[in-house]
Amino acid sequence: MTRHRTSLGTLLRHVHLDGPLSRTELAERMGVNRSTVLSLTAELVAAGLVREEHPAATRGAGRPSLVVRPESERVYVLAFDVSVDRLDAARVGLGGAILERRQATRPRAGVDLDRVVSVLAGFGRELHEAASPGAVCVGVGASYCGMIRPGDGTVRYGPDLGWVDQAFGAELARALGLGQPVAVGNEAHLGARAEYERGAGRGEPNLIYLHGDVGVGGGILVDGDLLGGESGYGCEVGHMLVNPYQGRHCLCGSSGCLEAEVGEHALLSAAGRSPDLFGREAVRDVVREAAEGNKEATAALSEIGDWLGIGVSNLINLFNPGVLIFGGMLREVYQGAAPHVAARIARHVLPVSRDRTQLRLSALADDATLIGAAGLGFAALLSDPSKSHGGTR
Amino acid sequence: MTRHRTSLGTLLRHVHLDGPLSRTELAERMGVNRSTVLSLTAELVAAGLVREEHPAATRGAGRPSLVVRPESERVYVLAFDVSVDRLDAARVGLGGAILERRQATRPRAGVDLDRVVSVLAGFGRELHEAASPGAVCVGVGASYCGMIRPGDGTVRYGPDLGWVDQAFGAELARALGLGQPVAVGNEAHLGARAEYERGAGRGEPNLIYLHGDVGVGGGILVDGDLLGGESGYGCEVGHMLVNPYQGRHCLCGSSGCLEAEVGEHALLSAAGRSPDLFGREAVRDVVREAAEGNKEATAALSEIGDWLGIGVSNLINLFNPGVLIFGGMLREVYQGAAPHVAARIARHVLPVSRDRTQLRLSALADDATLIGAAGLGFAALLSDPSKSHGGTR
Repeated sequence: MTRHRTSLGTLLRHVHLDGPLSRTELAERMGVNRSTVLSLTAELVAAGLVREEHPAATRGAGRPSLVVRPESERVYVLAFDVSVDRLDAARVGLGGAILERRQATRPRAGVDLDRVVSVLAGFGRELHEAASPGAVCVGVGASYCGMIRPGDGTVRYGPDLGWVDQAFGAELARALGLGQPVAVGNEAHLGARAEYERGAGRGEPNLIYLHGDVGVGGGILVDGDLLGGESGYGCEVGHMLVNPYQGRHCLCGSSGCLEAEVGEHALLSAAGRSPDLFGREAVRDVVREAAEGNKEATAALSEIGDWLGIGVSNLINLFNPGVLIFGGMLREVYQGAAPHVAARIARHVLPVSRDRTQLRLSALADDATLIGAAGLGFAALLSDPSKSHGGTR
Repeated sequence: MTRHRTSLGTLLRHVHLDGPLSRTELAERMGVNRSTVLSLTAELVAAGLVREEHPAATRGAGRPSLVVRPESERVYVLAFDVSVDRLDAARVGLGGAILERRQATRPRAGVDLDRVVSVLAGFGRELHEAASPGAVCVGVGASYCGMIRPGDGTVRYGPDLGWVDQAFGAELARALGLGQPVAVGNEAHLGARAEYERGAGRGEPNLIYLHGDVGVGGGILVDGDLLGGESGYGCEVGHMLVNPYQGRHCLCGSSGCLEAEVGEHALLSAAGRSPDLFGREAVRDVVREAAEGNKEATAALSEIGDWLGIGVSNLINLFNPGVLIFGGMLREVYQGAAPHVAARIARHVLPVSRDRTQLRLSALADDATLIGAAGLGFAALLSDPSKSHGGTR
């Protein structure tokens, strides 16, 4: 029975992550025979989770293998993303497509728990009500730009918004009123998993994802598992000390942390921007202007790229990763600062590791963390599709 | 059959790591009934790997449970350790006791592969010949102060001895002439596992072991497994850049690496010692003199402790470990520099991680890496005790 549930979940995960697959492909991937695929698929069809159809085009002789496709419109999760300059919400279908979304630009101040929960819950209810009749919400996931206590969705420490020990997950669940818990994760942890499952890190179990927002977060996969450490608070790359002398002040109370030296404030300030400017558009402007030859913007990217290169070099020496992915605001920064990062790597990383690590841009870009949050929402269904999950709209 | 072999290995591992255990204790630990323990033990007794005996003292009523004890004198490995100032060799019995050992002080220069192999092989043959008639050598393991290619025992990079791509494992096996391969590991990796299995890190699956020699190596366990990364070259904590401005020159070609700032050369030079002095005794002298109030030695430990504290803080933020262990030369240094390390941790480590990490001294001290090498030698026997391993002397 347990093995059967596991097989159901494995089949569903394949079509969730990789899209429509033929019975033959599924049998090969799962290492089972086609009659097992047939019976597992029949059960998932009966549960309304997948459907079988003839492939669009068929070639060659013989009867074409039916294709198993996730019921993307019928089965969905709600996904939320709290970043420093935006609040995002989406209805994401089984298979990973964003079906519908809402977004609010976050004001710089006045972002207490009640306000954030109220905006997100309003979006969530709208998205839920807009789903087709008969559609099922199977879970809710949220990404947050801070440290999350494993298990209960409490924000332990979110310096960018000034949150300490806020029951974000519980409050959002209550305000949504769907009778479902909200699974919460750190934005960089979720971004790492999303890039591993559907982005720039597919097939790379030793992966580092760096997420730039106002701060810098890290999601580190070791043999495919997120590095949690003793209590789930590992991966804090943003507070790696890179500048021990007169480093920039960090929101954590220290100075010279990686996030203080390469975060949004550092870049905008080095580029001489007004202290009133913030957010990813302001960062993009600096990178664009540097590309156009603006000297101040070029110098700023050079300085920030140098510190970023030090942080990246340390991570490669420590983790010997297969891939290191720049996400969030660092996706833009890296495009403007790649030579400076490369110079530090050449100088500091031991050759045996240097040659093995590929540097890549996030493929999911601004949606990496939201897609990661959706992944949290789907987790229960994928671990046991035979149980009833969620409720019909 | 496979499950049976696994159970044999599990039982043998329990008595190898924890010493004599009663059948009742073994049954509890393994989650099997006593008759299973009885039959597994009988098989291990027949193979000459354990013996059963009455416990030394018995209390209470009833028949005392027999105690299963490893055949420590009869079943052994040869273990070797190449560190910068010493060559060590030992015969280590099943159960982990060092039965007999040889040691040579290494000259500072002239330490090419042939010379090292020749000294170690000589020791190894002596130790092998000194074993009791009928004793069995079941494996050979070696620890080396450099990066080892996984699988074949080649030293990829050993800057302290100037070795690059040297077939150390194969050459030592050939020179020993026992018809057995030599499993080679990095000293800090092996020290980490030894401390986890029998030292200061027992029961701590999220563990960082820092090993000071001329360089600084790291062995990092994540959920009980050594962090290897994509090609086995992770854990290079020694080349984490901690001092980006005018850092001390490092043997890797860069400067400001952790090992350049806290290694033996840095300490002895900061303490104003003659450039001719080197080795662990010279380091111990500085720590002892600082404890006695010598100002130059105190200042040197303060400087080195500060850099060590930065490195340690970065590791705690990244790994959220349960325990961080100072081994090799850093065991001495930490005893003299603990307040400086603590000050950096207080300043740089996020509170959620800071409270969870205990700092400890290596319990195996100078033998951590040698005991780790012995562990490599025992690996094949423990994974399948039913196979014949090694040969009678």
